[in-house]
Amino acid sequence: MIKILIDCHGGDHCPEAPVSGALAALSTFPDLHLILTGDESLLRKELEGKAYDASRLEIVHAPQVIGCEEKPTDAVRLKRDSSMMKAIILLRDREDIAGMVSVGSTGALVTGALVRLGRIPGVIRPAFCPLLPTMDGGIVGICDSGANVEVGSAQLLRQFGIMASLYLEHVYGVESPRVALLNVGKEPEKGDVLHQEAYQLLSQTPSIHFVGNMESRDLLSGKYHVVVADGFSGNVLVKTTEGTALELLKKIKKDIYSRNLYKLGALLMKRMFKEQKEFMNYQNYGGSVLLGTSKVVVKGHGSSKAIAVTKCIEQAYKMQLNQLSAKIEQEISKYEHYDDV
Amino acid sequence: MIKILIDCHGGDHCPEAPVSGALAALSTFPDLHLILTGDESLLRKELEGKAYDASRLEIVHAPQVIGCEEKPTDAVRLKRDSSMMKAIILLRDREDIAGMVSVGSTGALVTGALVRLGRIPGVIRPAFCPLLPTMDGGIVGICDSGANVEVGSAQLLRQFGIMASLYLEHVYGVESPRVALLNVGKEPEKGDVLHQEAYQLLSQTPSIHFVGNMESRDLLSGKYHVVVADGFSGNVLVKTTEGTALELLKKIKKDIYSRNLYKLGALLMKRMFKEQKEFMNYQNYGGSVLLGTSKVVVKGHGSSKAIAVTKCIEQAYKMQLNQLSAKIEQEISKYEHYDDV
Repeated sequence: MIKILIDCHGGDHCPEAPVSGALAALSTFPDLHLILTGDESLLRKELEGKAYDASRLEIVHAPQVIGCEEKPTDAVRLKRDSSMMKAIILLRDREDIAGMVSVGSTGALVTGALVRLGRIPGVIRPAFCPLLPTMDGGIVGICDSGANVEVGSAQLLRQFGIMASLYLEHVYGVESPRVALLNVGKEPEKGDVLHQEAYQLLSQTPSIHFVGNMESRDLLSGKYHVVVADGFSGNVLVKTTEGTALELLKKIKKDIYSRNLYKLGALLMKRMFKEQKEFMNYQNYGGSVLLGTSKVVVKGHGSSKAIAVTKCIEQAYKMQLNQLSAKIEQEISKYEHYDDV
Repeated sequence: MIKILIDCHGGDHCPEAPVSGALAALSTFPDLHLILTGDESLLRKELEGKAYDASRLEIVHAPQVIGCEEKPTDAVRLKRDSSMMKAIILLRDREDIAGMVSVGSTGALVTGALVRLGRIPGVIRPAFCPLLPTMDGGIVGICDSGANVEVGSAQLLRQFGIMASLYLEHVYGVESPRVALLNVGKEPEKGDVLHQEAYQLLSQTPSIHFVGNMESRDLLSGKYHVVVADGFSGNVLVKTTEGTALELLKKIKKDIYSRNLYKLGALLMKRMFKEQKEFMNYQNYGGSVLLGTSKVVVKGHGSSKAIAVTKCIEQAYKMQLNQLSAKIEQEISKYEHYDDV
């Protein structure tokens, strides 16, 4: 049995989305056991009249909600009865629980996980690794996408590469993932000193298949499975991609409505546009996993609906099933250790 | 008369594109005088049979070409007879020449401009400011997009904001441009120390209309006219936007060809798709101007065709016409000066 906690508050569609998403996951994976944290009466109300295996679903009452505008350190310190902090503390204290899923405040989740859970031995700092679809039908993971906005050492970037490569390989079945470093040009000497050093270090890392620098223009090309980035530019990379796709589809939609001829054309292409929209819909690609924490943590988008939460649960389930943490510890241990600076 | 140099080598469509682009600009602006640098016999061949005002077109023979793979410092030192370096040296030495346009190597151009031309008094480092179209029909300038991949001080970011704001105001007629700082979140405390300091400094800069942090998701929304960025993440921002738009349009095209029904629909929407493609075509938005050098420098994309070169010439012309350098010097002088670090 794989046990996973679901933080049921803090997102746009809470608690419906986490509760419905949890039930869908329960029916898909017979060896999955879920523990919902949140306001018990609200959660019970959501569950009312729905069919599910009650022996595999627990509820832990945690009525406080952490808002997105709250200071992460305050939330961690003061809101111990919140659905998120309760989940983090349970995850730390109960050996039988493997991981957690949350669609709440990113800052509070990262801070809480760092302070309360700790890291896999040898890991300098955990990092986020969201996935985006590539044009050839594959996926690409970007690590880090914002857990570390200040990256001081190339060793840290090397660890991001190792962790994300293992994630793509063991959770998504990508054989020998092609790992690239996000930089401002292809040549090894491009970028600042940090990225120049990271290029050298990644080249000397037999645990991964490093293929060189990537220019951000090529993110969706399908040439790469893992993009190593400092959290600041990784964040820019992911959000710009999402934003541009969204704005462009919005513009196409607006233009279609400007002329009857276009409306007619669009009618014939309705299915294609729907597929296009689905293709760029992050809800279909699960959450951002936090790689490097001692237990599995998956962060879903704040606007996640039930289907997206189910995907996040599936990710957490597969990370545990494939013993990702143990594999990360093993690979990381092959290189020098550096304490957090 | 406004005199501008055109470096006629180094791009994908050279020397046709610069030569044709130059002739188009000459016929648009009667007080424009152009000086082409390049292999004279090749340039004369391009001009053959074309109608233009020969009294406003000079050719300076400079047969060497700088390749994109060449080390910028070597190119600057060793290729003094190249079309680019010749242009830079003429720009420095001849008081009557206002600026130059090049579609050649970015690295060589930046290095050459820094070493040979120098900066506007008070400017710490010059910065690139390319433009992108926004969804409401406007434009947004991103400064810096890659001239400075290592930004050590918030003062530098403040100068990028001042220079780009003046550029949008005086060359594109945007009244009181809304200036934002590229960051990983909206709140002032987001990002690393550099960006936190830059936020404070930009807030205390009466020369600009600072509206706060921008998340990269909102670049094309039309909410901002100027985005201040360190050269590394600014580069990621611009290239990711271009790359995503390009890949998405490519995917739509591919999908259309997959079914006859879609082909029919697309036929009805032909004009719309063409407009869409034009909308995201950087060739229509001119080049990346280098703000802060003592004389005007405009860098066109390596793949620029004639129309894009004409746009670049127009930009250089208008920067000179509106005395942008003098305005930059004046505004920059209101704040403390810092030497390059």
